[in-house]
Amino acid sequence: MSKYNVAIVGATGYTGSELVRILINHPDVNITAITSESRKGELFSDVHPQFKDIFDLTLIGIDDLEEEGLDLVFLALPHGVSMDFVKDNHHKSFKIVDLSGDFRLSSKAVYEAWYQKDHHFEQGFDQTVFGLPELYRKRIREGRLVANPGCFPTSAILALAPLMKEGIIDKNQITVDSKTGVTGAGIKSKPNTHFPMVNDNFSAYGVKSHRHTIEIQEIVGKYANSEATVLFTPHLLPVDRGILSTTYTKPTREISTPELEKIFREYYENEPYVRLRSDLPNLKQVRGTNYCDIFTTYDDRTNTIITISVIDNLVKGAAGQAVQNMNIMLGLDETSGLHISPLQP
Amino acid sequence: MSKYNVAIVGATGYTGSELVRILINHPDVNITAITSESRKGELFSDVHPQFKDIFDLTLIGIDDLEEEGLDLVFLALPHGVSMDFVKDNHHKSFKIVDLSGDFRLSSKAVYEAWYQKDHHFEQGFDQTVFGLPELYRKRIREGRLVANPGCFPTSAILALAPLMKEGIIDKNQITVDSKTGVTGAGIKSKPNTHFPMVNDNFSAYGVKSHRHTIEIQEIVGKYANSEATVLFTPHLLPVDRGILSTTYTKPTREISTPELEKIFREYYENEPYVRLRSDLPNLKQVRGTNYCDIFTTYDDRTNTIITISVIDNLVKGAAGQAVQNMNIMLGLDETSGLHISPLQP
Amino acid sequence: MSKYNVAIVGATGYTGSELVRILINHPDVNITAITSESRKGELFSDVHPQFKDIFDLTLIGIDDLEEEGLDLVFLALPHGVSMDFVKDNHHKSFKIVDLSGDFRLSSKAVYEAWYQKDHHFEQGFDQTVFGLPELYRKRIREGRLVANPGCFPTSAILALAPLMKEGIIDKNQITVDSKTGVTGAGIKSKPNTHFPMVNDNFSAYGVKSHRHTIEIQEIVGKYANSEATVLFTPHLLPVDRGILSTTYTKPTREISTPELEKIFREYYENEPYVRLRSDLPNLKQVRGTNYCDIFTTYDDRTNTIITISVIDNLVKGAAGQAVQNMNIMLGLDETSGLHISPLQP
Amino acid sequence: MSKYNVAIVGATGYTGSELVRILINHPDVNITAITSESRKGELFSDVHPQFKDIFDLTLIGIDDLEEEGLDLVFLALPHGVSMDFVKDNHHKSFKIVDLSGDFRLSSKAVYEAWYQKDHHFEQGFDQTVFGLPELYRKRIREGRLVANPGCFPTSAILALAPLMKEGIIDKNQITVDSKTGVTGAGIKSKPNTHFPMVNDNFSAYGVKSHRHTIEIQEIVGKYANSEATVLFTPHLLPVDRGILSTTYTKPTREISTPELEKIFREYYENEPYVRLRSDLPNLKQVRGTNYCDIFTTYDDRTNTIITISVIDNLVKGAAGQAVQNMNIMLGLDETSGLHISPLQP
Repeated sequence: MSKYNVAIVGATGYTGSELVRILINHPDVNITAITSESRKGELFSDVHPQFKDIFDLTLIGIDDLEEEGLDLVFLALPHGVSMDFVKDNHHKSFKIVDLSGDFRLSSKAVYEAWYQKDHHFEQGFDQTVFGLPELYRKRIREGRLVANPGCFPTSAILALAPLMKEGIIDKNQITVDSKTGVTGAGIKSKPNTHFPMVNDNFSAYGVKSHRHTIEIQEIVGKYANSEATVLFTPHLLPVDRGILSTTYTKPTREISTPELEKIFREYYENEPYVRLRSDLPNLKQVRGTNYCDIFTTYDDRTNTIITISVIDNLVKGAAGQAVQNMNIMLGLDETSGLHISPLQP
Repeated sequence: MSKYNVAIVGATGYTGSELVRILINHPDVNITAITSESRKGELFSDVHPQFKDIFDLTLIGIDDLEEEGLDLVFLALPHGVSMDFVKDNHHKSFKIVDLSGDFRLSSKAVYEAWYQKDHHFEQGFDQTVFGLPELYRKRIREGRLVANPGCFPTSAILALAPLMKEGIIDKNQITVDSKTGVTGAGIKSKPNTHFPMVNDNFSAYGVKSHRHTIEIQEIVGKYANSEATVLFTPHLLPVDRGILSTTYTKPTREISTPELEKIFREYYENEPYVRLRSDLPNLKQVRGTNYCDIFTTYDDRTNTIITISVIDNLVKGAAGQAVQNMNIMLGLDETSGLHISPLQP
Repeated sequence: MSKYNVAIVGATGYTGSELVRILINHPDVNITAITSESRKGELFSDVHPQFKDIFDLTLIGIDDLEEEGLDLVFLALPHGVSMDFVKDNHHKSFKIVDLSGDFRLSSKAVYEAWYQKDHHFEQGFDQTVFGLPELYRKRIREGRLVANPGCFPTSAILALAPLMKEGIIDKNQITVDSKTGVTGAGIKSKPNTHFPMVNDNFSAYGVKSHRHTIEIQEIVGKYANSEATVLFTPHLLPVDRGILSTTYTKPTREISTPELEKIFREYYENEPYVRLRSDLPNLKQVRGTNYCDIFTTYDDRTNTIITISVIDNLVKGAAGQAVQNMNIMLGLDETSGLHISPLQP
Repeated sequence: MSKYNVAIVGATGYTGSELVRILINHPDVNITAITSESRKGELFSDVHPQFKDIFDLTLIGIDDLEEEGLDLVFLALPHGVSMDFVKDNHHKSFKIVDLSGDFRLSSKAVYEAWYQKDHHFEQGFDQTVFGLPELYRKRIREGRLVANPGCFPTSAILALAPLMKEGIIDKNQITVDSKTGVTGAGIKSKPNTHFPMVNDNFSAYGVKSHRHTIEIQEIVGKYANSEATVLFTPHLLPVDRGILSTTYTKPTREISTPELEKIFREYYENEPYVRLRSDLPNLKQVRGTNYCDIFTTYDDRTNTIITISVIDNLVKGAAGQAVQNMNIMLGLDETSGLHISPLQP
């Protein structure tokens, strides 16, 4: 079988280098092009020296991207930049997995309210599938444009979806307390990612206003054909990778821990990348991999369902999920190229 | 003025070394004895080498503790051990600040249910004052036996007390999501504090069952002359020191962020160790100090009050608060010896 | 082609879990057994939960190891324990890669002097090949018993071997200043690996007496048919994985940086796991992989050759190199199963 | 006694905030002004929020600095900026402690060669005293302009000075392998101080060319009335604070560890901030303090003297030493304001 050809547009960031890390061992796919406007002409391993002697393609400008024979493009571009590429290329023969937030929400209006940015391609919202395979596998299979979910939303939605779908929780009392590693902030250094600011430290950020709030809220609502209200508070951990989300919800009927576990088992038992845990999961148990590990329990003292999920924000929260989506879109085995074991310790 | 004489019983752990760190610069107090059963006869700086040439008292056994002239004893003993010292010494001439959990709860029955341990001195519960100066300063002043609050409870109660007292939140919908540094687990190495288990990692622990749950719940309830139900979930951070608690509560009447800030200001404006913050606090901003920094806000979208507090678990969460209590009990300036600035970075 | 069958004796430590991580993706090998005396009967993923749903073999006792059809055994046992397995099994039909230090040195006498332990199988020293493929590939190919090198020695010897072989450095003025991650100390928690002891901290250890000193010294000497004297100082980094060794040597003739680089290039240009770097390498650039990255330079101001090497102590310094040795011993492609990209960040 | 008045010129960086941390508890000194060009008009606690309610002076521009009544100025300015202030103010009535590198070296020529910058005030070199009290206390006492030593040089020179002065080591075979925390790079975020670049990572930098090389070499030479050649290699640790320097030197006569210890004892026994250690020191044992802890040993196998020193780069390596110098210059007790115990853990 000849391999599929894919390109990575915007390969100098963390999601770009993660896509390369995964795809170079993928048996069914060739990376035929990687682009960067700021560093075109340089070797990939000049930008990401860990790839020396492993992957040495030269970065090209987006205008030099050869479309012929191209099967799929990953957009690893900043929010607000992706939309222009999509606008110009949505009618081309290649499929697109967009890792930015530009097409994850329901409409231009919602996007502009939460991203504080104009949106240039309103039609894109209709053409896009939200790329969370556990919820929308069928649509992804047909999709030509997939919006890869945000990292926090991936962790939160997988923790909430069974509860929402079953209709057993109060849809307006959903609290998601999330903690993320620093790579979620991107490869560019900023004052708040300066090592002495983060190391041995911890804080909340984006309280009440983080953009992923609306993404979680819209998707869990839509998935349950309902409205929902989600409170989401992110915190910054002194770790590289990983998100742990602790979700608190209120049952609308009598429930027990075993029943909760049964519900989650029924939803996820055939899912290759959701692992239900009876013990408490930690970040390193999924590090470098596409797994989402989930623990759920009912606290009768406070009548609360606590569900804890962990992912690697750069893998299941970005590049790994993008490859999973690609596998589905290209008709490949969904796990192809994703047989990676956690790097623990 | 002659100085007061104090002893530290159980000086080989982290709270013991923190008490020494603070007290050796205290202008009104002498450390006259430090005890340890396992390492008696050794120099303090053999156990804690950072104190070489700074503090070189020899550790003695508790049986060799000279009571004459002793004004106050700090008990830095494990839970379950403190109670025996108190039982044997509560009638002596010296006062006691107990840093363990043995007398923080309301009764022997509650203690035994949550600590899974027999309690040997039931009468102690009546004689004890809960040593949170911001709530119980007057009683501490009269107290002869003060139970120094737990680290998580200190952070959570200070975040919740004004809301409870004002009666503006639903007392049965209190969620405390806390994140702590590893020193909270003590100086003894265990599998779950092995560096490669914690570093670059994060997890929840003690879900639904942590002992500090009941301490928070009882105190915030009692302070508001009411019952309360508190959900408390601790998490382990890859940091040495510090607790950040994110609390979620539901208002029982209309509220706004400015009004919340006003309430907190009224409660805490004369408190030397509570700093109200209009920006989001982080752990290092209080590291090494007795401060509790608090941020509060109202989210109208979800009708939730979010209050975030940070402390250094070994200082305001243990040794610093113990010295603050000692100052009050001995009639000293409450801030004496506690003029320490945060070590940031 | 049918696969080879291998067993891991002592699979509960870090080298055991790393062997599994690598071998489960190896195309030519099956793990047929994993052993542990302390945890036999348990699932591998009970001991290493990150492997849940990935690798779920049950740990067996060593006495239950089925020898028939077994092609190779990895010994991931502590020093002093391996030797007994080797003594009892060196004549069996399977080959052995011993990851302990029991057969790396030249003789029983040297071993006993540096390891402060009796050695029970003196004949083993003659039968053993030192498993550093870059130096001893041919002998490894014929070997039935391979002593997998220590982690520090791997990093130091690869940095020194070309200089020694060329005879261009003073063999009695070799200084190796090494810095290692904590996993080098094993999976068992100890006071000096307690998180608050290591985090945000740094120290030297084993000064003048670390066992790897003699391993480095003997091998670099032997490789150059000469005697050598090596000064080796290890330090403990607050990181999980990785060793960086900074070596200082004195040239015995005129030299320049370009000439040094040429020498290293000639030695290593066909080596799949040595990457010569013109910029300064860091630990994460090899994390999770079998690479050793090397930088070399000549400082004419002080007449010193500085060579800096980095490895992942658990991979090129242990399990990865063991698999590389296995590949050679079994006649497989040397890189089989080792196509792993660095986890950076 | 009325207090001395001091100003901090350039108070927005780490050395500025450390000077404040120390000086606000100093019994003999008032901070009367703090300056910043970029943030003048703001409160100090806007820039360094940890000082909220502790120190709330407003930053002023340097042109608004009131000279009358000013006793001493700390220059916490970048290299290349300090020299202009000194040029304009060296004849004023206040004394100056310059924390930059502008006047530490022997001459304009040497400075320009190693700093790659023009020097505008050549006469300053003659008027300056190198502010290492352990070597130059007398001159500091008379000095009006003191160049506060670099952080690496402080750690290295204290480790080497006794050996140099005694003339027992080969002055041209001095190797200093140093490891520093990230605060040494300043408060400004840069790509190489981005958290995911440093965390769980380690690398060398500035190999052969770091500016502190010449500072160490000149001072240890001058102190021994001799020439010296020093090889210095810095490395970047994933820690906030602290420098550990491992120095390797060659004895020129027979020596032993006890004799070495005796020599160091004789040099440093009355020094308030040098602690000789018989066990191996670590960074946290001096964290936040003005101590330099030193361990020395002789390795007869390799005929090498190994001396290991640790300091807090922001305290003994910067602000603490500056206060120590100020105390000497103003005729105060040298330890005034510096009674700070290590923050360990």
